[in-house]
Amino acid sequence: MGIRHEIRVRYGEVDLQGVVFNAHYLAYCDDAADTWFRSLAWDPARSGWDVMVKKAVIEWHGPAGLGDVLAIDVDVTRWGTTSFDVGFTGAVGQRAVFGATLTYVGVGYGTAVPAPVPASFKAATATLSP
Amino acid sequence: MGIRHEIRVRYGEVDLQGVVFNAHYLAYCDDAADTWFRSLAWDPARSGWDVMVKKAVIEWHGPAGLGDVLAIDVDVTRWGTTSFDVGFTGAVGQRAVFGATLTYVGVGYGTAVPAPVPASFKAATATLSP
Amino acid sequence: MGIRHEIRVRYGEVDLQGVVFNAHYLAYCDDAADTWFRSLAWDPARSGWDVMVKKAVIEWHGPAGLGDVLAIDVDVTRWGTTSFDVGFTGAVGQRAVFGATLTYVGVGYGTAVPAPVPASFKAATATLSP
Amino acid sequence: MGIRHEIRVRYGEVDLQGVVFNAHYLAYCDDAADTWFRSLAWDPARSGWDVMVKKAVIEWHGPAGLGDVLAIDVDVTRWGTTSFDVGFTGAVGQRAVFGATLTYVGVGYGTAVPAPVPASFKAATATLSP
Repeated sequence: MGIRHEIRVRYGEVDLQGVVFNAHYLAYCDDAADTWFRSLAWDPARSGWDVMVKKAVIEWHGPAGLGDVLAIDVDVTRWGTTSFDVGFTGAVGQRAVFGATLTYVGVGYGTAVPAPVPASFKAATATLSP
Repeated sequence: MGIRHEIRVRYGEVDLQGVVFNAHYLAYCDDAADTWFRSLAWDPARSGWDVMVKKAVIEWHGPAGLGDVLAIDVDVTRWGTTSFDVGFTGAVGQRAVFGATLTYVGVGYGTAVPAPVPASFKAATATLSP
Repeated sequence: MGIRHEIRVRYGEVDLQGVVFNAHYLAYCDDAADTWFRSLAWDPARSGWDVMVKKAVIEWHGPAGLGDVLAIDVDVTRWGTTSFDVGFTGAVGQRAVFGATLTYVGVGYGTAVPAPVPASFKAATATLSP
Repeated sequence: MGIRHEIRVRYGEVDLQGVVFNAHYLAYCDDAADTWFRSLAWDPARSGWDVMVKKAVIEWHGPAGLGDVLAIDVDVTRWGTTSFDVGFTGAVGQRAVFGATLTYVGVGYGTAVPAPVPASFKAATATLSP
């Protein structure tokens, strides 16, 4: 089960066209993912297992601008052996703004060596309420 | 034909893990694309035709860090009727760092109404030397 | 009377040294100031009077890092004829993190021509409760 | 003697008002300072002496916008016992854009404990040509 994370657009994130500059959406997703990871109370150092972003796909359906609050729903959409996908759906009120999928690869803590997703990590994600 | 655009990583773009924070890569691509658009000498206001980012796909092959200079190659990889894809390949020296594809949609200048890619725009991109 | 604005530090805002990168503090102040301006319900376009940042002074007393929530107190600290100062005090819990003063210059809306601070603007700021 | 560092404004750094968002100027100064420190070939880890930003004062004289290249001159403007000031002067062509002073405090490497500026550090800065 996932979570909902809200982000209020900041003035400096809006560009000349009056909309949030595209790169900030990845920062928003990262912030939502970070909040999700924290809510799992997963400790990379203690468990010896951490994650790295491998791939990101993001598609925009409409703009967000100054004064908007983006509600971002976060949930796992695929479990692999050493990787998993997290889906993000962003909306302002009832209006869809973007959808994104980030692929994370599990690694040994402090390394770039792939390591299988621990069963306890998967179990932790299952206990979240949206 | 495309262009090569170089970006020197700034200290503030490097995160706790010692690598460039993922969202900055979209800003790097935007900066490379902006440079590419300028090299075309295309004037959205005069021509009445502008572009919007619709989708971004980015995959990382390795990290970039403090002191690195990213060489980003930019070129069109697909032409559609009202949209086109621009491919980005980023490397530090001979080491591949990332690949990305951004999908741009043509719109009437100052609007969000899709408009076909002008033949003159395609022609302009063909004259660039890498 | 001023307001209090809270900002939760994002992962991508923390640098290699494990602390919020210094430039983000100006973005935090801007976000706090923007929230303060909105709370005044001041409409630059309708009133014909807007502001520009002229000067910023910021001093750090200690670091903020990942997971911290910065509470920023915002209030006017000086009224001039065509300019005024806004003071910002940032803390994490009881621990002081920074103090800043931004000098804003009043200008005709859409211009860079200095214009006196309207009495109605000053009056609006007096009605805020902290 | 100082150095000159050039920064080309990126699209995503320009805000709704068509000018570089104020917080980016501190990032520009940091990038210029980082380039200056590197040119000194000072190794904080080996020497055991590092610096932290304590204070920043920045004043704007005019805007920078899309397509502008900021030339930033960097030089030490004050030497104290455990701190020193670095001055930054930014211009687009002959037009002054901003001036800034950052105060750095010397610390033991990896600590926040103040430590006197080494004579060898001061000597290194004296050898730079502008």
